[in-house]
Amino acid sequence: MTLYATILAGGSGTRFWPQSRATRPKQFLVLQGKRSLLQATADRIAPLCPPERTVVVTADALCATTRAQLPQLPPENVLGEPQGRNTAAAVGLAALHLLARDAAAIMAVFPADHVIADAAALCQSVQQAAAVAQQHGLLMTLGVAPTYAATGYGYIEVGPLLATPGVPRAHRVTRFVEKPDAETAARLLASGRYLWNSGIFVWQAATIAEALATHLPKLWQGLQAYVAAARQGESAAELAARYRQLPSLSIDQGVLERSARVGVVPVRFGWSDVGSWRALGELYPPDAEGNVVVGQHVGHDSSGLIVYSPDRLVATIGVRDLIVVHAGDVVLVCPKDRDQEVRQLVEALRARGAQEYL
Amino acid sequence: MTLYATILAGGSGTRFWPQSRATRPKQFLVLQGKRSLLQATADRIAPLCPPERTVVVTADALCATTRAQLPQLPPENVLGEPQGRNTAAAVGLAALHLLARDAAAIMAVFPADHVIADAAALCQSVQQAAAVAQQHGLLMTLGVAPTYAATGYGYIEVGPLLATPGVPRAHRVTRFVEKPDAETAARLLASGRYLWNSGIFVWQAATIAEALATHLPKLWQGLQAYVAAARQGESAAELAARYRQLPSLSIDQGVLERSARVGVVPVRFGWSDVGSWRALGELYPPDAEGNVVVGQHVGHDSSGLIVYSPDRLVATIGVRDLIVVHAGDVVLVCPKDRDQEVRQLVEALRARGAQEYL
Repeated sequence: MTLYATILAGGSGTRFWPQSRATRPKQFLVLQGKRSLLQATADRIAPLCPPERTVVVTADALCATTRAQLPQLPPENVLGEPQGRNTAAAVGLAALHLLARDAAAIMAVFPADHVIADAAALCQSVQQAAAVAQQHGLLMTLGVAPTYAATGYGYIEVGPLLATPGVPRAHRVTRFVEKPDAETAARLLASGRYLWNSGIFVWQAATIAEALATHLPKLWQGLQAYVAAARQGESAAELAARYRQLPSLSIDQGVLERSARVGVVPVRFGWSDVGSWRALGELYPPDAEGNVVVGQHVGHDSSGLIVYSPDRLVATIGVRDLIVVHAGDVVLVCPKDRDQEVRQLVEALRARGAQEYL
Repeated sequence: MTLYATILAGGSGTRFWPQSRATRPKQFLVLQGKRSLLQATADRIAPLCPPERTVVVTADALCATTRAQLPQLPPENVLGEPQGRNTAAAVGLAALHLLARDAAAIMAVFPADHVIADAAALCQSVQQAAAVAQQHGLLMTLGVAPTYAATGYGYIEVGPLLATPGVPRAHRVTRFVEKPDAETAARLLASGRYLWNSGIFVWQAATIAEALATHLPKLWQGLQAYVAAARQGESAAELAARYRQLPSLSIDQGVLERSARVGVVPVRFGWSDVGSWRALGELYPPDAEGNVVVGQHVGHDSSGLIVYSPDRLVATIGVRDLIVVHAGDVVLVCPKDRDQEVRQLVEALRARGAQEYL
């Protein structure tokens, strides 16, 4: 079996504004050292998949930046989408690419914008999931043991054990639960039978192709037609029009929740989807003053801050529990418990036509 | 009588950090439109003194920037000091320069870093003070009617009226009071006999020369020797060593408080020495959300802010009564009532050797 990595790097979220912008989405965020989340994702899986077997799906508009960030990848391994049509389309596009190269490909799918502390543990879990996927023909997920009643993650109900040589623990999945409300989340956590859906998946390319053809036939046929048209040199405008007509669903909703052939490997590798600025505060230990700092900060009687300012200095006097972000040419100041409102601010900027800041 | 303007632009304060730096002190701050405080000072007095009769005293290190900011001035009108020795030395240096040009010069002295709303009223007051200085041979000050019990300004006690043709109101000064404590300030304000010392002075060059020779003989002789040595081509290092030995006193303390021949013209022209970031909030009317903004700001549920970000965007969510400054490569966040602590922050940066931010 030959493992191929597929990195989904088409994100264009606003929750990390002003660091993330239309042309510099979250996967290009640098949280530690000098490596972006995208680069760190590729670094982590490099021991499993050399650059030739690592494929990135991103927006056409981000292909150049993506190739520049990952110069070790053959340029043709960076697949551009004319526009984002959610993860089912991105996974399908990568599956078609891999099947054309290797009909027996095993495909491991990674979001480009998560943080994982223990790369060795990740690689081991991916290898185990690959073994299960190979032996049982299942769509495998990696499930994170929940540590609190999160409402921001999807949950996976763990079913019967799957016996696979060399894999100490893998299970069938009984069902998926979309991001629950607080009460439901507390119940799922208390039951001990649920894991968080990490968004990392492992399967044979042929298995996911079959599942797409079964559960999302319109998408799958559309993708095949798109790839054929691209090969025949159809114009960019025509290709974009085709892609725009593909159904927009997540791979979770479109396939995993509908399939009876899903498994999960429980993992423990220090995972975060870094969903917002506040999540930074949970990723890193605070400094002596109780501030979590990415970049440079000098504080006077300041504590409980999350400071993100990789290139420049943020100075604070007498403030508490704020998020202060200095990214590019924009500064954001916001209490820690209100970072969800960043989206509204971005909407307000859009409404006033302040394109240069979006 | 011929009036010459002398702008004192040697400041290197830290209260406007991070906008003001060692190489970009407060007089280069842009508060409105595109003109720095220094440029606005020159603009205001241009109707009285054309560029040929406007002299600026600044630090040697700031001469180039000063000349670039005031290209209308003959370059030789920008006088550099090897190092700052307070305002008595700066005034003395300018007086020597003017006396060499015109023994009958009338000299009006202006701080380069104040804000004055009504330029026409300023010019009228300066002309009146010049008439009094000429007729009575006095050292004239401009006194601002106090509007609250400020502890950050010096006070002038108003004495008997001075009769001068064409000058409706001018007085002898009975005494000066250095920046008072809150209790004293309240008493001075209540008495109705005190004005704030604006730092704007008008006198004959010959009168201030005589006063310097009388009250600060060491300084005056040192300055004369310095100017002679400069004329003879002494090296920069030797000149700097001479200048360093000059006594460092303000013209207020060194001369005005010691002289019996001081007068004041009460003025009303909307004056602020813009002593700190907070003072900005008193200079400009707040916007619809109650924020005073110099530059670009987008706020969501934010009020009572003072935002200074002339070139870039500051975005805020759910914050109140903060100062947010985005100047050059540094961001400062600080409650409005704690802006006096900026000095301590700058000291902390100095202590850790962060020269690039000073």
